[in-house]
Amino acid sequence: MTHVTIRDVAMRDGLQIEVPIPLDAKLALLEAIVATGVTEVEATAFVSPTKVPALADAPDLAAELARYPGVAFSALVASPNGAKRAVAAGIDSIEYVVAASDGFSRANVGRGTAEAVGLIPEIVSIAADGGATVEIAVATVWDCPFDGPTPVDRVRSVVDAAVAAGVDRIMVADTIGTAVPARVTTVLDRIRPLIGDLPLSCHFHNTRGAGLASAYAAVEAGVTRLDSSAGGLGGCPFAPGATGNIATEDLVYLLRDSGIDVDVDVDRAIEAARVARRVVGHELPSALLAAGDRTR
Amino acid sequence: MTHVTIRDVAMRDGLQIEVPIPLDAKLALLEAIVATGVTEVEATAFVSPTKVPALADAPDLAAELARYPGVAFSALVASPNGAKRAVAAGIDSIEYVVAASDGFSRANVGRGTAEAVGLIPEIVSIAADGGATVEIAVATVWDCPFDGPTPVDRVRSVVDAAVAAGVDRIMVADTIGTAVPARVTTVLDRIRPLIGDLPLSCHFHNTRGAGLASAYAAVEAGVTRLDSSAGGLGGCPFAPGATGNIATEDLVYLLRDSGIDVDVDVDRAIEAARVARRVVGHELPSALLAAGDRTR
Repeated sequence: MTHVTIRDVAMRDGLQIEVPIPLDAKLALLEAIVATGVTEVEATAFVSPTKVPALADAPDLAAELARYPGVAFSALVASPNGAKRAVAAGIDSIEYVVAASDGFSRANVGRGTAEAVGLIPEIVSIAADGGATVEIAVATVWDCPFDGPTPVDRVRSVVDAAVAAGVDRIMVADTIGTAVPARVTTVLDRIRPLIGDLPLSCHFHNTRGAGLASAYAAVEAGVTRLDSSAGGLGGCPFAPGATGNIATEDLVYLLRDSGIDVDVDVDRAIEAARVARRVVGHELPSALLAAGDRTR
Repeated sequence: MTHVTIRDVAMRDGLQIEVPIPLDAKLALLEAIVATGVTEVEATAFVSPTKVPALADAPDLAAELARYPGVAFSALVASPNGAKRAVAAGIDSIEYVVAASDGFSRANVGRGTAEAVGLIPEIVSIAADGGATVEIAVATVWDCPFDGPTPVDRVRSVVDAAVAAGVDRIMVADTIGTAVPARVTTVLDRIRPLIGDLPLSCHFHNTRGAGLASAYAAVEAGVTRLDSSAGGLGGCPFAPGATGNIATEDLVYLLRDSGIDVDVDVDRAIEAARVARRVVGHELPSALLAAGDRTR
């Protein structure tokens, strides 16, 4: 039986565009997410508190993570300075985001792809000094809101540089939720030969309804690590009203009923989605939050 | 290039649980749906006007269909009497619904599966006399809200009887939106050997988020006919707040970007979804209605 490891990203990718919520509310959400059985959680990001005020409490949140020794926590960074702050806060798994498209990279971090790639060795060195691992999170892998479709060679070139720099894991992200199964397979086929035995994960948004279909296509292509978000929390600032990350509970439902082994319990994931809805104070796009599990 | 024929079912499966809307509003929706380029439309149902008041105007609507000679219209029936009314109204493509689970069949039409199956020859005869074709729409193929998972042998037995009675097409429906790709493949593998060259279509709901993934799994398994609904109009009375049919515009987006040929234009499908939202007066679950097409 295939096992798929799910990383819940509601705490970071979910909350980042929300109105900032108090640390206590975040910890309630974290508690509910951990209770689902999930083994990996993206806890926060060490990025500009001005640009992302919702995650300005990253060091405070990081200080609470030791309460859950069974869970592997990661934090996203966008610069060497962020990596230093993350390591100083005790984070031992860093995600460094590099957009494969220049337009998004400039809008997101103020530098183009090549410049962002050029910082990978420094990030790896900072992490190594702090005893942390590094995942390269490749953003806008399929499409860019500014540049249109991303040539797969741009993605390959980021992955190549990351592998050469000795990173520990690769993640490919459909940042604006435009991928579909056939395009997922195409990209995965082109990058798998580059990464050897490094773990590869995929991160999909459900913005155009195809997020779960894309995630399943990735699993069929051999990917065993997927990001998802409690309640589907998380949107995209470029698509107002659009749904966000694929919902953890919907993903777990699909995988479980497809005979794939997952650590997350559907009912507890629905409960975490309820907590997510409560702490952000608005409806979430999760299907199971509305419909519930099927009768078994 | 694979071609997939889409049938838009918003006019019937979409509107059936809505508050009844005036014929003029329905015709505006029909006009918008036809303008998408779709070649097949489920126009209405000839069922009890007491049980389904939203479709009580079926004969009036049927009288308008001749305005669109390029579109193949079908209507759903649940009894020989309904079939007679449909034929009398000029419908030349009848869908007779038979639930594979007894619980849903009894709740839906007041008779169990075997009894509903027993009426197939009479329906075929009525259709033949009126120059109409017959599709058997098998409901609750994966799960029943009352009986739980549907044994695939129950589905096979309905399909066997339909083929023996000389029907023209088979459709399998995930009535309550619980299917996932692996379960879709399992059922299709078991029924394909029974139907020879008869056209086979699939009908999915997105109630648990997996509708598009299931539809794509069906296409990968060789199915070239899919039902979907403008705007994702249509819910399920057993899952309040749950999303309805898979949205035509979301399906077309996924298929188009997967390199599959479809007759429906994405932009016009989004426009039809807007009209659907306007005529029913509430939000719809469509992803593209919120997010729009991707930049190309």
